Amino acid sequence: MASHEAFVAPSGFLIDIDGTIFRGNELIEGAKEAICMLRKMNKKVVFLSNRGNISRNMCRKKLLEAGIDAAEREIVLSSSVTAAFLKKHYSYSAVWVLGEEGLIDELNAVGIQMANEPKAADWLIISLHESLTYQDLNQAFQAAAYGARIIATNKDRYFPREDGNAIDVAGMIGAIEASAQAKTEFVVGKPSWLMAEAACDAMQLTAGECMIIGDSIESDIAMGKLYGMKSALVLTGSSKPGEARLYEPDFVLESIKDLNKLAEEGILF
Amino acid sequence: MASHEAFVAPSGFLIDIDGTIFRGNELIEGAKEAICMLRKMNKKVVFLSNRGNISRNMCRKKLLEAGIDAAEREIVLSSSVTAAFLKKHYSYSAVWVLGEEGLIDELNAVGIQMANEPKAADWLIISLHESLTYQDLNQAFQAAAYGARIIATNKDRYFPREDGNAIDVAGMIGAIEASAQAKTEFVVGKPSWLMAEAACDAMQLTAGECMIIGDSIESDIAMGKLYGMKSALVLTGSSKPGEARLYEPDFVLESIKDLNKLAEEGILF
Repeated sequence: MASHEAFVAPSGFLIDIDGTIFRGNELIEGAKEAICMLRKMNKKVVFLSNRGNISRNMCRKKLLEAGIDAAEREIVLSSSVTAAFLKKHYSYSAVWVLGEEGLIDELNAVGIQMANEPKAADWLIISLHESLTYQDLNQAFQAAAYGARIIATNKDRYFPREDGNAIDVAGMIGAIEASAQAKTEFVVGKPSWLMAEAACDAMQLTAGECMIIGDSIESDIAMGKLYGMKSALVLTGSSKPGEARLYEPDFVLESIKDLNKLAEEGILF
Repeated sequence: MASHEAFVAPSGFLIDIDGTIFRGNELIEGAKEAICMLRKMNKKVVFLSNRGNISRNMCRKKLLEAGIDAAEREIVLSSSVTAAFLKKHYSYSAVWVLGEEGLIDELNAVGIQMANEPKAADWLIISLHESLTYQDLNQAFQAAAYGARIIATNKDRYFPREDGNAIDVAGMIGAIEASAQAKTEFVVGKPSWLMAEAACDAMQLTAGECMIIGDSIESDIAMGKLYGMKSALVLTGSSKPGEARLYEPDFVLESIKDLNKLAEEGILF
């Protein structure tokens, strides 16, 4: 834990969604109140997720249904960051998508052109696709085999579902890389600089003025450490108490609801 | 080309199917006559394929429809060799299959037990699955994530279809290995010793008494070289005249129909 003397209270909070605010579709107890508290303290907030299969609008609705009000500009997803990255750096490219509607919505929103056929794609975007068929996989293979460069929204190996862990984007990347003998050039999701910069830009703050709160050492705490943000690990998701950690967070909280303890200790002021 | 003095005429022929006898569903001109000639010369013959998605019975019917009569014991497929391998060495194991009906038929034929759920599998068998869904991929992931050992019928990266090359077993292996952080222990297809031994056993001959005829340097000619068989490359499939070859065949034929030239030259006697 950082010493209190040297600690500058963060002005902005990057809040991970799955495992931090929600467990599956269920709101984690006290999450709504913790966010409310931050807003009352005039802290800036962004909601952050590696999910590449939903759009910010879909995410905003899910938060709103749980009683958490968020503007679209306060939501940073690997889908929206992928779209923004391509728009900024490769705006004349045509893309082929191995992914779902939410990603396509984000691409359409910034005017990214869809290729008419796999062979015509400049970029193949690989993302989670829970209703994928052999044909989807094959078209992605064809795009890569014909030379499309590869960008992935994230490379999580699996994600939790009611029926256990389910295969995630790393599997789709593995399928295409092995068959087309190609390599993914960009992985957009946390802990990438793309996500870190998008979140800081959304709050108009530097990384040093921010704290990231999340359940994953590999994505959330790693991103904090790599880009100079404060970090708080919550134990409501993938991380368990006492396990070895590649990156050590500044704070460990049982749950996001314990943010009030940091406030009471004066750490947030 | 081997010098004729030192050359012992082969007694048995391993004949690759796709690209050698058939191009897609179309019989290659002269293939039927070439096989007829071998039979008249009292040569032993096996038909060999890395296809893991068909059974020997399905293959026998396809050959028969094209006018080529073959007994089931003369057909050696990666599906049937996978089943025989598991039966011989792991007969008490329960398996989970990422694959198609033809493979399952071969497993059932030798009495391999199917696991009731992915978690219960001792082995995951990965093969071509042209109607694969996300759920199929996810169940295979779950089997591997819960510790099932992995055996693949083959690891071809793609296969030719009417609409171009299509993603093959290497893609499925890549998906599972990357997501479950697992490694495939056995790849059954050519150029493995499993296929070589199965083919020789079927003819009751040693490798030195056999010749393999096929269109693929990496699988057919490689297998010949690795196990001491004579080899003849045909140019009716994946290999093109004049291209660099990692393994040099003893003979190069335009097509299997030119086997009669080897006969006329006395090479087959």
